Amino acid sequence: MKNVAVLGAGSWGTALASVLAENGNETRLYARRLSAVQEINTYHTNEHYLPKASLAPSLQASANLSEVIRRSDVVVFVVPSQALRETARQVRPYLKPNSVIVHASKGLEVRTFKRMSQVLAEELPEHANQIVALTGPSHAEEVIQKLPTAVVVASKDSHAAEIAQSCFMNSYFRVYTNTDVIGCEMGGALKNVIALATGLCSGMEFGDNGIAALLTRGLAEMARLGFAMGAQPNTFVGLAGVGDLIATCTSPHSRNWRAGNMISQGKKLDQVLVEMGMVVEGVKTTEATYTMAKHYQVEMPITEQLYQVLFADKCPRKALTDLMSRDKTHELQDYVQGWS
Amino acid sequence: MKNVAVLGAGSWGTALASVLAENGNETRLYARRLSAVQEINTYHTNEHYLPKASLAPSLQASANLSEVIRRSDVVVFVVPSQALRETARQVRPYLKPNSVIVHASKGLEVRTFKRMSQVLAEELPEHANQIVALTGPSHAEEVIQKLPTAVVVASKDSHAAEIAQSCFMNSYFRVYTNTDVIGCEMGGALKNVIALATGLCSGMEFGDNGIAALLTRGLAEMARLGFAMGAQPNTFVGLAGVGDLIATCTSPHSRNWRAGNMISQGKKLDQVLVEMGMVVEGVKTTEATYTMAKHYQVEMPITEQLYQVLFADKCPRKALTDLMSRDKTHELQDYVQGWS
Repeated sequence: MKNVAVLGAGSWGTALASVLAENGNETRLYARRLSAVQEINTYHTNEHYLPKASLAPSLQASANLSEVIRRSDVVVFVVPSQALRETARQVRPYLKPNSVIVHASKGLEVRTFKRMSQVLAEELPEHANQIVALTGPSHAEEVIQKLPTAVVVASKDSHAAEIAQSCFMNSYFRVYTNTDVIGCEMGGALKNVIALATGLCSGMEFGDNGIAALLTRGLAEMARLGFAMGAQPNTFVGLAGVGDLIATCTSPHSRNWRAGNMISQGKKLDQVLVEMGMVVEGVKTTEATYTMAKHYQVEMPITEQLYQVLFADKCPRKALTDLMSRDKTHELQDYVQGWS
Repeated sequence: MKNVAVLGAGSWGTALASVLAENGNETRLYARRLSAVQEINTYHTNEHYLPKASLAPSLQASANLSEVIRRSDVVVFVVPSQALRETARQVRPYLKPNSVIVHASKGLEVRTFKRMSQVLAEELPEHANQIVALTGPSHAEEVIQKLPTAVVVASKDSHAAEIAQSCFMNSYFRVYTNTDVIGCEMGGALKNVIALATGLCSGMEFGDNGIAALLTRGLAEMARLGFAMGAQPNTFVGLAGVGDLIATCTSPHSRNWRAGNMISQGKKLDQVLVEMGMVVEGVKTTEATYTMAKHYQVEMPITEQLYQVLFADKCPRKALTDLMSRDKTHELQDYVQGWS
């Protein structure tokens, strides 16, 4: 049992904190809004993010960041990816020297194209060897209902990964360790791009056959970029890759899917983002991925067409036609090179 | 443009025949029932199998097997997997010497555990080098509506695969060639086992997280057995593997999914098969796969638990618990050996 801090009281942060508390860890959830803190401590609910769910009664919330961090052996960041760097800076002065740093944010820093563990390592240099990425197919709404879920904790340091594993693991929340941090983080980030594309295609003329083909080709281009960046292609066939891709892309509840779907109806990106009123990770990740694909000289036709639709005003139907009429006809000729 | 025969006027055979005819091939669909022949030739429909669909007007149906075969450069078998051997025997005397033999049956011969192309090669030895397997994510109901679909044609003989490709390919039906016949056929057969397991788990307490984890682990055990049999692991990340798995397992319309779901409600296998009144390929394939896993000494925990439920009266909930509580905790430790 550990002292654990969870930073970020959105749906995923709250669900993870509740699992940790239920497992017997002394768990404090940091929330900025005092009303959220009071609601969690008094009623053990977080209605705005997890309607009708009961949180672990032993979970304590607090709006006092320094207090939450100072006592914690494990600190779990569950903030939007563009806010991670700033949050890490705020946290640094209060961290215990040997704390394990976990993050559960799926995305890339737009300005730098850095992965979340890279951002953390830069901002928390004393803890750079104890950073763990938690990822995999995990809708918060199901975890809080204790429906079976399996996730991955990835770290260069297997001891840090095992500490995270032992804090989170229980009978309905299975936690697997993995050493391929790049692959696990890129899987979690890139699937949001494919989820956007899936929403877009579902809004046009794609049925189950077309979506299955899209996900298959999407997985291949995710693996190609990951491989070029140093990931193991195998990781993309695991929970952090194909697992998360399936859970995200087959659920119309995903924000990314919904944003893509609205765009297929002829709405412009700006309008969609205003209407949704929430962060849509896949939009920023598409922009970053498009640039990275050029940098690493990796062919990513789905990302490329999606980028043109989102940022260059290309007609979605034309993008789809261009994607479908590519002249590749042997299935594996453009798979990950050297992956056999 | 070729003279093509399609054998089997179920939903998939009819849809494929309609694609072939629409592409300008002179296409004859063999059906045993005269009423089906008349309906197709007169009304261009096959209401029993493809309700409300319009078939290509140029598609001709016939109940005369010898006549259908004698003129054909390409013969496409779309019969239940347990009927393939007998059908091939009937066809053999009428085959032109250079005909390309295509099959689109996903399953294994139960008695021998042989793949469909092996059965064809045994029964049609003069044509053993011109056999092509057509597989991939392809609900017939969507193909007949001309929704976008991508499939694979696999053959040891790339020329035969290319002939099949050029007959079937059009703007909404994309056809990729592949040389890994074993992988493509095993992907198509084994996904039915995982579809049964998915229906079973969906009927219990699994949400999207659990199903995504099940499909991920299912894909891994499919690839392990395929690899042991000589397939390329890569094939399982393509349309014939993960693509077909996603299309089949995320659709509650799949017979296998429905059979699994009924079993989760406490019904016995015999009762389910009687109620469904149709072939459920996954049931027989589970039996065959269980035996093959033992033979090849491959670990297939999902198949093993499903076998116990179907054939050894194990309680589904106990099977689920046993599956979830396996002590593996590092994600890739039991992946395909030698696949990196």
